[in-house]
Amino acid sequence: MSKLLLINGPNLNRLGKREPVHYGRTTLPELELSLVEKARNLQTELICFQSNHEGAIIDKLHWAEDEGVKGVIINPGAFTHYSYAIRDAVAGIELPVIEVHISNIHARESFRHVSVIAPVCAGQVVGLGIEGYGLALDALVNIVKGRLES
Amino acid sequence: MSKLLLINGPNLNRLGKREPVHYGRTTLPELELSLVEKARNLQTELICFQSNHEGAIIDKLHWAEDEGVKGVIINPGAFTHYSYAIRDAVAGIELPVIEVHISNIHARESFRHVSVIAPVCAGQVVGLGIEGYGLALDALVNIVKGRLES
Amino acid sequence: MSKLLLINGPNLNRLGKREPVHYGRTTLPELELSLVEKARNLQTELICFQSNHEGAIIDKLHWAEDEGVKGVIINPGAFTHYSYAIRDAVAGIELPVIEVHISNIHARESFRHVSVIAPVCAGQVVGLGIEGYGLALDALVNIVKGRLES
Amino acid sequence: MSKLLLINGPNLNRLGKREPVHYGRTTLPELELSLVEKARNLQTELICFQSNHEGAIIDKLHWAEDEGVKGVIINPGAFTHYSYAIRDAVAGIELPVIEVHISNIHARESFRHVSVIAPVCAGQVVGLGIEGYGLALDALVNIVKGRLES
Amino acid sequence: MSKLLLINGPNLNRLGKREPVHYGRTTLPELELSLVEKARNLQTELICFQSNHEGAIIDKLHWAEDEGVKGVIINPGAFTHYSYAIRDAVAGIELPVIEVHISNIHARESFRHVSVIAPVCAGQVVGLGIEGYGLALDALVNIVKGRLES
Amino acid sequence: MSKLLLINGPNLNRLGKREPVHYGRTTLPELELSLVEKARNLQTELICFQSNHEGAIIDKLHWAEDEGVKGVIINPGAFTHYSYAIRDAVAGIELPVIEVHISNIHARESFRHVSVIAPVCAGQVVGLGIEGYGLALDALVNIVKGRLES
Amino acid sequence: MSKLLLINGPNLNRLGKREPVHYGRTTLPELELSLVEKARNLQTELICFQSNHEGAIIDKLHWAEDEGVKGVIINPGAFTHYSYAIRDAVAGIELPVIEVHISNIHARESFRHVSVIAPVCAGQVVGLGIEGYGLALDALVNIVKGRLES
Amino acid sequence: MSKLLLINGPNLNRLGKREPVHYGRTTLPELELSLVEKARNLQTELICFQSNHEGAIIDKLHWAEDEGVKGVIINPGAFTHYSYAIRDAVAGIELPVIEVHISNIHARESFRHVSVIAPVCAGQVVGLGIEGYGLALDALVNIVKGRLES
Amino acid sequence: MSKLLLINGPNLNRLGKREPVHYGRTTLPELELSLVEKARNLQTELICFQSNHEGAIIDKLHWAEDEGVKGVIINPGAFTHYSYAIRDAVAGIELPVIEVHISNIHARESFRHVSVIAPVCAGQVVGLGIEGYGLALDALVNIVKGRLES
Amino acid sequence: MSKLLLINGPNLNRLGKREPVHYGRTTLPELELSLVEKARNLQTELICFQSNHEGAIIDKLHWAEDEGVKGVIINPGAFTHYSYAIRDAVAGIELPVIEVHISNIHARESFRHVSVIAPVCAGQVVGLGIEGYGLALDALVNIVKGRLES
Amino acid sequence: MSKLLLINGPNLNRLGKREPVHYGRTTLPELELSLVEKARNLQTELICFQSNHEGAIIDKLHWAEDEGVKGVIINPGAFTHYSYAIRDAVAGIELPVIEVHISNIHARESFRHVSVIAPVCAGQVVGLGIEGYGLALDALVNIVKGRLES
Amino acid sequence: MSKLLLINGPNLNRLGKREPVHYGRTTLPELELSLVEKARNLQTELICFQSNHEGAIIDKLHWAEDEGVKGVIINPGAFTHYSYAIRDAVAGIELPVIEVHISNIHARESFRHVSVIAPVCAGQVVGLGIEGYGLALDALVNIVKGRLES
Repeated sequence: MSKLLLINGPNLNRLGKREPVHYGRTTLPELELSLVEKARNLQTELICFQSNHEGAIIDKLHWAEDEGVKGVIINPGAFTHYSYAIRDAVAGIELPVIEVHISNIHARESFRHVSVIAPVCAGQVVGLGIEGYGLALDALVNIVKGRLES
Repeated sequence: MSKLLLINGPNLNRLGKREPVHYGRTTLPELELSLVEKARNLQTELICFQSNHEGAIIDKLHWAEDEGVKGVIINPGAFTHYSYAIRDAVAGIELPVIEVHISNIHARESFRHVSVIAPVCAGQVVGLGIEGYGLALDALVNIVKGRLES
Repeated sequence: MSKLLLINGPNLNRLGKREPVHYGRTTLPELELSLVEKARNLQTELICFQSNHEGAIIDKLHWAEDEGVKGVIINPGAFTHYSYAIRDAVAGIELPVIEVHISNIHARESFRHVSVIAPVCAGQVVGLGIEGYGLALDALVNIVKGRLES
Repeated sequence: MSKLLLINGPNLNRLGKREPVHYGRTTLPELELSLVEKARNLQTELICFQSNHEGAIIDKLHWAEDEGVKGVIINPGAFTHYSYAIRDAVAGIELPVIEVHISNIHARESFRHVSVIAPVCAGQVVGLGIEGYGLALDALVNIVKGRLES
Repeated sequence: MSKLLLINGPNLNRLGKREPVHYGRTTLPELELSLVEKARNLQTELICFQSNHEGAIIDKLHWAEDEGVKGVIINPGAFTHYSYAIRDAVAGIELPVIEVHISNIHARESFRHVSVIAPVCAGQVVGLGIEGYGLALDALVNIVKGRLES
Repeated sequence: MSKLLLINGPNLNRLGKREPVHYGRTTLPELELSLVEKARNLQTELICFQSNHEGAIIDKLHWAEDEGVKGVIINPGAFTHYSYAIRDAVAGIELPVIEVHISNIHARESFRHVSVIAPVCAGQVVGLGIEGYGLALDALVNIVKGRLES
Repeated sequence: MSKLLLINGPNLNRLGKREPVHYGRTTLPELELSLVEKARNLQTELICFQSNHEGAIIDKLHWAEDEGVKGVIINPGAFTHYSYAIRDAVAGIELPVIEVHISNIHARESFRHVSVIAPVCAGQVVGLGIEGYGLALDALVNIVKGRLES
Repeated sequence: MSKLLLINGPNLNRLGKREPVHYGRTTLPELELSLVEKARNLQTELICFQSNHEGAIIDKLHWAEDEGVKGVIINPGAFTHYSYAIRDAVAGIELPVIEVHISNIHARESFRHVSVIAPVCAGQVVGLGIEGYGLALDALVNIVKGRLES
Repeated sequence: MSKLLLINGPNLNRLGKREPVHYGRTTLPELELSLVEKARNLQTELICFQSNHEGAIIDKLHWAEDEGVKGVIINPGAFTHYSYAIRDAVAGIELPVIEVHISNIHARESFRHVSVIAPVCAGQVVGLGIEGYGLALDALVNIVKGRLES
Repeated sequence: MSKLLLINGPNLNRLGKREPVHYGRTTLPELELSLVEKARNLQTELICFQSNHEGAIIDKLHWAEDEGVKGVIINPGAFTHYSYAIRDAVAGIELPVIEVHISNIHARESFRHVSVIAPVCAGQVVGLGIEGYGLALDALVNIVKGRLES
Repeated sequence: MSKLLLINGPNLNRLGKREPVHYGRTTLPELELSLVEKARNLQTELICFQSNHEGAIIDKLHWAEDEGVKGVIINPGAFTHYSYAIRDAVAGIELPVIEVHISNIHARESFRHVSVIAPVCAGQVVGLGIEGYGLALDALVNIVKGRLES
Repeated sequence: MSKLLLINGPNLNRLGKREPVHYGRTTLPELELSLVEKARNLQTELICFQSNHEGAIIDKLHWAEDEGVKGVIINPGAFTHYSYAIRDAVAGIELPVIEVHISNIHARESFRHVSVIAPVCAGQVVGLGIEGYGLALDALVNIVKGRLES
């Protein structure tokens, strides 16, 4: 069964508590649980990881390649906007990566309009709430199974 | 049965023929057919429209509101990057709109990195090939049916 | 009796319905009717035109010159901010043109702060609601009748 | 009878003498006289003030609120482009303010294209010569009398 | 006999009438007639098209590829400076395209200094009056006949 | 017989050797020879000059005016992008000057998109290979002989 | 007893009346009174000054140095963002100056984010309401008495 | 007794050793000790934390909210200028946060002039040496005790 | 005897006291005295004026034209960099004006590199110490007496 | 024997595996081994450290100073372009630091062209492959031994 | 007798012929002759040099230092705006240098508003026609003789 | 024996004399001598060239390719920052080129932070004093002998 990795970046451990107007009321454990189940239904194993530490996210991306993970969903949180180090880690591993943002970053402060990581990802899902993770999972499974014309 | 609208903007009538490295080999009629079927499976009716004319797209967005359409998927093509008139039309109708881009616009020329329309959309799906339309349809149906935490 | 032309650009056909906080509740037909009457009281004939199509607006401006129209009031809607083609049409006809904006474009998003058309107009009326059209008509009649020191 | 205030900023005391190609040949006293008369015909009293001193204009705006003035017409001259202090004074008083420019500032040097005061005004009349003051007066009276849909 | 296409964009239907200091006194029909003749002398057929509608120009570029046209000369008028949709149409057809400007766009307003279309054209002829079309035709015939080292 | 001058700037002495993907395989002496012949067929004398020295090009432009040269074709090479001194020399002589670029400078690095010299030239031919010199010669002869509507 | 100077700039005479959401409800006389008392408790004399006139503030800064004032607290109001003349006056006197802003200027319009005066002050207190003046006074007294490691 | 948190960011562990011209000679333990005492005098408990790790600072901010801390003083060191992740953590917790800088960041390199964290803080104290921490503590206690008009 | 006017702007009353490294040790009265004497030797009368008030400088420039002054030397101090109101006053009077700066503004902070007034002056003398005033006086007398080729 | 420190930043643990077109095929352990040997031949001890964690790199730089290390070679990876915190750590220790980049950062994406750390280093070696570390070591030993004129 | 050097840069050999509206009708030999005479009256020897070659101007500046020249007047022509190499030469010699521009560069094209050389000069004289050279000579002699407070 | 070329650009003939704080006290002949010797020890011949003339440096680069030179070390001096003509010459020859700067250009004026030549070089050595030339020579010999993994 293919292994996939879900990475949530800084402050996403507060999901459901922090600024619900932007991020909704589902908590991170609830979200992870529902995605693990959805993944299982798609005959894949989803490994979930969250960290507020840029370095830990880079380490995890390296680990993914070494462990034979087949694809990554990442919500880099605010690292989206400046972490060229995560960008390099994404570019350096040879795995498809899909970036997800819960809120519509284009409708918020201008610093949120640019992702330094998106250019080295396969694609991006923005503003569709926590549903966006599920959509990204659908797409990632298709890519991994060679069913998606990328 | 809820009506939804799919709008494809300039040059997307050439899908499958134009620059397949960016846009794949599926033609627009093939894409529309498969999405209409997918919509039907989701108990909705999808109406498809393509135009190279900015004004015609604006007219169609107005028409959608008048006709009781419940939501819109739009790939504005190159209008994405400068058509404030389409932006105003999207903002002016009271419908959820999801923007789709087949290719990863963040990995191409810099003028493609900014969407003037995205800030007034509900969300955006980028770079996941024509599969992105299907994901947007899933999300839109959920929004329309009140199942998506937006 | 001098003929004058009123052009309303994209999305202004939705006047009274779209975003009333910015644009008020008078509809376009109501506005046009009251301006035609006001024009008649000023011994001029006002011809009204609205389109969401940039090209149709350019065609109409050319038509105005050919038909002996003596002056133009234009609310270019969102074309204000990028249509150099309309700008060239305004510059190319030898008629006085006054630009009108219902809302105060300087108090809204930054892309609305610049008009690419205003530099080739005679003047501009901004933020005075639909009353702004009436003021522009007063001024235009004076220009046309040679009573305004421009 | 409602009191209204007309403020003319720096160098407008030279009206009729300075650069007539931009500002025409009517002098400031002549302009003020005709506007006072027009105001009287509209059942309002217009108080006229001119100063080359930024601080004096701020003082006058404060005075207006204290004196029960109902609305202000202001041509801030070159202060338009940098006086955030006048902007704050306009924003701080709770009166409708209309900005007037005699010449078409969008057709002149680029520093004249931006008004730092306009975002906190009700509206703006540009490029219609000294007639612009009269149009602003018409609009202001309507606002003050609650007849203008702002 | 090879077919070539000449596209003239917005306001060029006014050639000979509009701003002769920039564009000269030859009318569009006269220009088209002389170019058709010149083309015939070069053993090619030149089809002429003018529109003020961006969408119509895109449609025509698609048509050209479908009709077996071998090359295109285009003066996009003001669309030169913002129509990424025309740019995409030019890039999407597999034909050599040469951009022509009658006036020296580099000696006019700064917005005219950049062409968003030129990067996907074969080349550009600027500022040589209507003669520029004839030069472009010479070059295009050479490219089409494989005589030009591009 | 009218004298014309051809100036090639820095690195163009390497034509045919340097980066043939951009500049083709014809050498400078071959190019000059064919242009001299073409000029002779047009009843003009073409004088050819190449230098890698900005100052030498300025000197030659001054010489041209003093010698009664009637027009200049110049490919300033990389000086195109920063030599305001050559610009001043072009502006200072009272001769028509046409700028030529072999490659499409708008499709290369961004620093190549701007010519500081073009604003003071009559016109510009870009991206049409070495054929561009021949087209410029055609145009220049017409200008010099008063046959071109500039 | 050391003399200190408090300068409040444009519109701060309206404190307590103008935009209480930003500036609170304490009036300027109340603020000045409480600060004079606080100063007395710290064995210093505080002189209070307010003006809407840039020149008057400069005059007062010069006066401070001539009068043997030992330090200055200044809230330059909107002059903060453009008055290089006040900056020069601050830099030119050899006294410690502390800049105070009642509201958090970094959370408001972008023009308020930059202070042209702060670089030549000792320090800055921002966003702590009218309490900020008291904190600045504490710091200033410490500086003046040589108790602060600056 | 209310708990407050003091966070010092990268390189502030070197206080008293690193660049004393900017940061003075007091060491971090000395500073923390004096602030803990000052807090105790104000009937509050101050918890001190320093880290060179962005993620650890984010973790601590989350911890503060969970632990019932009532307010935070933060000197984010160089993270001030780019850590949108810390900004989001500050915005996400519902506690008053005051930013402190020992040196006058507006008088140093231009990258230090902008704080990406300040817009979501209550206020900021800049350039008043280590005394600035004490002032921030005074203000924070007042805010926490509801005595400050914010 | 021709009358000339010398205007010194903000902070120049502190000449000789303020920042002598930039401005030297001569006081303003000493400077004015020596220039009045020099003017007398050149058969002209020099009137000296200094103010820290922008409005007073504008008033004085108007006065100069009304009084028959023949030319002006102005050191606008920091107003140089933002007072478009003084610029307009200079442009509005029909007198030759020469701008003087004691220090080399191009070797100091970047905001000092641009003069908004210089474009409407006859010329500028920068960085030559107080001697610069004398040179400007020499030039102004020549202009006034028609001896300078401007 | 002098101790020197080698720091490799994020993703450099993947050396030899990640993007070999940019970074070559030597692994980090191989590189470190060869540099330790080279250092020994130069009578110095080289300590090697790699981390993907910004904070860990800052800690190590502080450690270096405390441990009596005499100089540092650092390849900050992507931190080069935004880690002002590492910059401050480098500036704060009183050791010579040389920055190394394996690839030519000036020939890659524009965000890589700027190093925020280089201004506080002694020097920089760019684009010379892993050989660059050896050259930096040569230079550092010379600096440490006082043999380099810095 | 002190030796001084006058350097005129590109295109100034055309003085009196080129664009007399900007540069007047005096020729370079006439100008040089009158300045040599003026210098002699001031008990100095003026050596005159003109070149269109940037390198030759640099060589001459080096020569000046080697030859014991005491000061330099330079009109760098268009090199003013980009020749950092001449800037370095000026900064490298230890002589006072005064920059002269005949026309008012601040009233012309925007590229002329910035001098890259002025920051390393003693001062600058702009827009006072060829008289500017004489004024610069007066100032230079005073500096050289130690009579100018710089 | 392989031939290598050393090019030093403008003002480097003054090495050891000009601004020793930036460039040290070794003269150019001394530097060249020691590098020639070092090259000989590495079994290569180093040819040394210095010029203040941009064109001469371009000529020399062409000459290098024609003469069979195997690699180039260049310190372009201030040409580094604007000479696109030298950049083109470097790109046009098919030789490895290493750029050297004696001082740390990133710690000086901002115009020195960008090299327009570095993107087409193999690598760059910055800020390591004249030792940098020796390091570049080591690297270049390794490249030329195929020993460097570039």
